[in-house]
Amino acid sequence: VSEPGPIRVAILGTGLIGGSIGLALRDASGWSVTGWDPDSAALHAARNHGALNLASKSLADAVHGANLVVFAAPVSAVVDLFSQLSGAVEPQATVTDVGSTKARIVAEGERELGGRFVGGHPMAGSAGSGAAAASADLFLDASWFLTPTPATTPDSLRLVRSMAQACGAVVRECSPDEHDRLVAVLSHLPHLLAYGLATTAAHSVPAKWRSAAAGSFRDGTRVAASAASLWAEILMENRDETLRAMEAHGTWMDQARHALESCDCEALLSLLSHANVAKRAFPTDQSGDE
Amino acid sequence: VSEPGPIRVAILGTGLIGGSIGLALRDASGWSVTGWDPDSAALHAARNHGALNLASKSLADAVHGANLVVFAAPVSAVVDLFSQLSGAVEPQATVTDVGSTKARIVAEGERELGGRFVGGHPMAGSAGSGAAAASADLFLDASWFLTPTPATTPDSLRLVRSMAQACGAVVRECSPDEHDRLVAVLSHLPHLLAYGLATTAAHSVPAKWRSAAAGSFRDGTRVAASAASLWAEILMENRDETLRAMEAHGTWMDQARHALESCDCEALLSLLSHANVAKRAFPTDQSGDE
Repeated sequence: VSEPGPIRVAILGTGLIGGSIGLALRDASGWSVTGWDPDSAALHAARNHGALNLASKSLADAVHGANLVVFAAPVSAVVDLFSQLSGAVEPQATVTDVGSTKARIVAEGERELGGRFVGGHPMAGSAGSGAAAASADLFLDASWFLTPTPATTPDSLRLVRSMAQACGAVVRECSPDEHDRLVAVLSHLPHLLAYGLATTAAHSVPAKWRSAAAGSFRDGTRVAASAASLWAEILMENRDETLRAMEAHGTWMDQARHALESCDCEALLSLLSHANVAKRAFPTDQSGDE
Repeated sequence: VSEPGPIRVAILGTGLIGGSIGLALRDASGWSVTGWDPDSAALHAARNHGALNLASKSLADAVHGANLVVFAAPVSAVVDLFSQLSGAVEPQATVTDVGSTKARIVAEGERELGGRFVGGHPMAGSAGSGAAAASADLFLDASWFLTPTPATTPDSLRLVRSMAQACGAVVRECSPDEHDRLVAVLSHLPHLLAYGLATTAAHSVPAKWRSAAAGSFRDGTRVAASAASLWAEILMENRDETLRAMEAHGTWMDQARHALESCDCEALLSLLSHANVAKRAFPTDQSGDE
């Protein structure tokens, strides 16, 4: 009996995430990685960085013969590329993506590609961008959400799962809606609070005092440096769940405001004590920098 | 001519902050440290940790002969102790504190002690508490606010300044009111946002998903573990400025909510782009963990 050949993976979009997947799969055994990017400089960078076995000149070339196609592009680009892909991809190939929101992308993906589309979202990132910042261990111990639906083909889910595991990630599966609800609270709301805190502080703190900011401010604004264009898209894409999370947080802030306004020490202490308990309900060694 | 003796410092309250000041001054030369704490176990711990040259049995014993008295106690305790102190402290001694808010404490301190009271606030902390967690380098490169007023005695300000510098801190001077305005935005608001985020998330995220939280959540909730009783007091003490900072942040959140509700991508992008600029206006290497 002959050995089975490597699993052929086509990565569409060879930036930080796509490049890191390529590096991780090339470090693992049993994967062969072809890349394509609409930006030839990005493709070149990924190849030079060692993230690809092969760089393709077109989307059609890249997906030809691929067992697994990975869209490593922003949500809007993925939805636009689905229609291009459906004519080019192999009939049996599995397709996944890495977008930060899942409900719409999975609905569109299943409409264009059927049950072989499996939504994915690795919870990892970096201050850098582009393939030059890519790293084989970007996903090590990070959560990688997969969002199967009743329509998902079991073999496709298995293949995407093994790819995420080969990247070193911890696979977590839930529905697209549940995913979007979770990330609204665990990622999108924290980003909004940080953007708002940085803006508020820059308005009211004179330049000479800015270096006096405490650790609570530094941590609370770290992700305010995250790319505005990327995050405007993510937040808009997940607007319903994000609005819900904002409302819940706003209600808490209103309670704190009311306690302060009415000098109600007991109410304030109760709010903060419950927050201490809430914080302890989350593990402290969460990984992933997104 | 005889060498001048060491400057005699009495530290009232020998927990994390008081203990760390003791350790830092004992590492520097020219200081002799006496400690007192109403909790004899805390006093014992500080002495065992090497933070004190001498442990006193009473406040009166500790301040007898001291050139500099440091209140290293929560704001409420400090205000209560002022009257006890004014009868016991040497007529020429300088007095300072380490409280997180300054307007009321400086007003009370000057009323009881006159211009030799200099308000202080080292912006440093630790996840630990008590003298056992104290460290000689807790204040290294951290901001240490001093809040002189027109009534402040210049020699007292100089003495407190040299003490903070001997601890390795960067001394920053402003009025008590300006201090409270700054920390409302740079520390108190970030704490409230973190407490609210932890509470919101614990309510809406099922236990099995809590380990999936991203870095933005971990950073955005780090200080939600800070002691509720201490922070309820700080926030209540600085309520006017904290409420003002909350209102400014709330206005930003309302703008973001409006942009999301009306699907106004351009408005959202503009908010986040300005936040990117705002974040860059703050140095990234701020020190201090408070």
